[in-house]
Amino acid sequence: MRNSTRSGVDPFIVMDVMEAARRAEAEGRHIIHMEVGQPGTPAPEGARAALTRAMGEDAMGYTVALGLPALRERIARLYGEWYNVDLNPERVVITPGSSGGFILAFTALFDAGDRVGIGAPGYPSYRQILKALDLVPVDIETAAENRLQPVPSDLEGQDLAGLMVASPANPSGTMLGRDDLAALMEATQAHGTSFISDEIYHGIEYEAKAVTALEISDEAYVINSFSKYFSMTGWRVGWMVVPEDHVRVIERLAQNLFICPPHASQVAALAAMDCREELEANMAVYRANRQLMLEGLPKAGFDRIAPPDGAFYVYADVSHITDDSRAFAAEILEQAGVAVTPGLDFDPERGGGTIRFSYARGTADIEEGLVRLKRFMEARG
Amino acid sequence: MRNSTRSGVDPFIVMDVMEAARRAEAEGRHIIHMEVGQPGTPAPEGARAALTRAMGEDAMGYTVALGLPALRERIARLYGEWYNVDLNPERVVITPGSSGGFILAFTALFDAGDRVGIGAPGYPSYRQILKALDLVPVDIETAAENRLQPVPSDLEGQDLAGLMVASPANPSGTMLGRDDLAALMEATQAHGTSFISDEIYHGIEYEAKAVTALEISDEAYVINSFSKYFSMTGWRVGWMVVPEDHVRVIERLAQNLFICPPHASQVAALAAMDCREELEANMAVYRANRQLMLEGLPKAGFDRIAPPDGAFYVYADVSHITDDSRAFAAEILEQAGVAVTPGLDFDPERGGGTIRFSYARGTADIEEGLVRLKRFMEARG
Repeated sequence: MRNSTRSGVDPFIVMDVMEAARRAEAEGRHIIHMEVGQPGTPAPEGARAALTRAMGEDAMGYTVALGLPALRERIARLYGEWYNVDLNPERVVITPGSSGGFILAFTALFDAGDRVGIGAPGYPSYRQILKALDLVPVDIETAAENRLQPVPSDLEGQDLAGLMVASPANPSGTMLGRDDLAALMEATQAHGTSFISDEIYHGIEYEAKAVTALEISDEAYVINSFSKYFSMTGWRVGWMVVPEDHVRVIERLAQNLFICPPHASQVAALAAMDCREELEANMAVYRANRQLMLEGLPKAGFDRIAPPDGAFYVYADVSHITDDSRAFAAEILEQAGVAVTPGLDFDPERGGGTIRFSYARGTADIEEGLVRLKRFMEARG
Repeated sequence: MRNSTRSGVDPFIVMDVMEAARRAEAEGRHIIHMEVGQPGTPAPEGARAALTRAMGEDAMGYTVALGLPALRERIARLYGEWYNVDLNPERVVITPGSSGGFILAFTALFDAGDRVGIGAPGYPSYRQILKALDLVPVDIETAAENRLQPVPSDLEGQDLAGLMVASPANPSGTMLGRDDLAALMEATQAHGTSFISDEIYHGIEYEAKAVTALEISDEAYVINSFSKYFSMTGWRVGWMVVPEDHVRVIERLAQNLFICPPHASQVAALAAMDCREELEANMAVYRANRQLMLEGLPKAGFDRIAPPDGAFYVYADVSHITDDSRAFAAEILEQAGVAVTPGLDFDPERGGGTIRFSYARGTADIEEGLVRLKRFMEARG
């Protein structure tokens, strides 16, 4: 048996870092984890309690493919609370994580061979999922002066069937303001390009509220998740909002591709949405961590950074130090005992000169990590 | 925004039945559910207890993409217990349900346009998932004298990149014996056709133990799940066994397509594997139900049936009564208050003359259902 061509997706380069960190820890070394893209906190206490309760009362078999109606309604209500958007719950689709949303969106919108634009730097799996579905990822090299986000002129002459945008973005944490987002959406409409908005980091924002694509137009797929703000990565539950006339297509695809999202995770997610106090306590930690990073990283010598608008990452330009971020990350791990993600995972062309620091973990870890990074850079000279 | 061609998958016809049943129940009618493909029992008590415990002790973030190592090892051990097969745990991949296994297998093995053979009648989602992935499902019309399973000669002149086989099968419950399975696997090897064995109903068997493809050769993808024997449909957790040299490719695909299977479900699944007593009690119910069905259906006038070797379905030939199983199922629901699945979901060509009865629910429901079916058929004359 041989493998297909489309299965030849690239490995995550950070996996080497994680494996080296695991080995170091097995040998008794203490490692600070600034490579991870997930909160260190569990699902909110109320979410876990709701699940324990449900497990005693219900067989928890399949739910309908689009997800528990109560959860779809609660999410629609969130759009009122967060953005003052009046959203029909019928347009909300519960998905097995945002990953499930990408698979549904890409199969619902694109046929084999279609070209789909993704920003570089960006979340590495966009490219790989597109490849696995026989689609053609088209890297859009974003510019620092555009805060590492695509702009309307990037669509020119590209013949894109779709454009994937993330705000706040991973790895940069930058957001698209309302005008920039609207201009981009208008441009896609003019080019007949489907617009997909990855809003997984909404809720984790610092200076201003993130803008959802739904504030601007209903002609978009919006993908979100309970993984980040709601601190539920391992539960694999997210959601997608689609235009009204796409719901039936998505329902049929979801029935066949997934049957349903995990029932237990849906029950926990519904309860999580009312655990505001605990979630805001998590936010206070991110806010404090961000401040520490913005002060500490420049002192350590990582001064080519931009304050992130949201998410829990700082993307640092280290091109004056190295053109091999992979080797540099390995060196930081080995010498400083801090795991970081090489930029090559996010930007195959230019990522040799960048690294991503995550500040998703506890504040004590961030403080210790910054001390170690400063010591390392001083010793390195 | 327009939808892709590949997203035009067919609806499940049984959904109409389910919706009509829901409406009837909302109006106060009592409906017996012989349409459902899932146990009425919850996850084993030990599985739920293990999850409650874990939720108090662990943040339950992402697991590694291939799944919890302890679960992979325990599944490898199951192959020793069930089949006396010595299996390397490294070959076991935890998936988000068998659905996740299909997506991984199809993308790992086939490129857009490849032809993949599936037996008719068969699980409807094979066809739809293949379509959604830009693959070409090729229906293999199976024969009653082959117990509705494909045979080696079906491969001739078909140019199949893959063949998908299920034993015990849905909807028929028939199994492939060791010799028949071996002959089929040899034929695929000779044709350069990848062999995928859907073993989701293993464990639910009545006269003889089901044979796993791994008893015959390592050159196969084997897909299984915690949904049926382990009574965990809504948890969306399954597994796949792949050849050793395919593990890395599957790992990269799984990292990108799913990140990981639901952590909570993996914890519950691991504990479920040691809840033998409860699982065997479920089996005793299926055994009793099967006996009732094999006696009661012929008395009711459904006498063109074959005893199922496994699973919890009886597939009845009703072509002497109707050529429109969809209308007939609607009539049974309306007149008898029993929901059944029209054969058209499993066999687009010949399913107008067949229906599937499920006996996955409690014995009292089966008894009542059979009484109603007999009364209905007598009244129908």
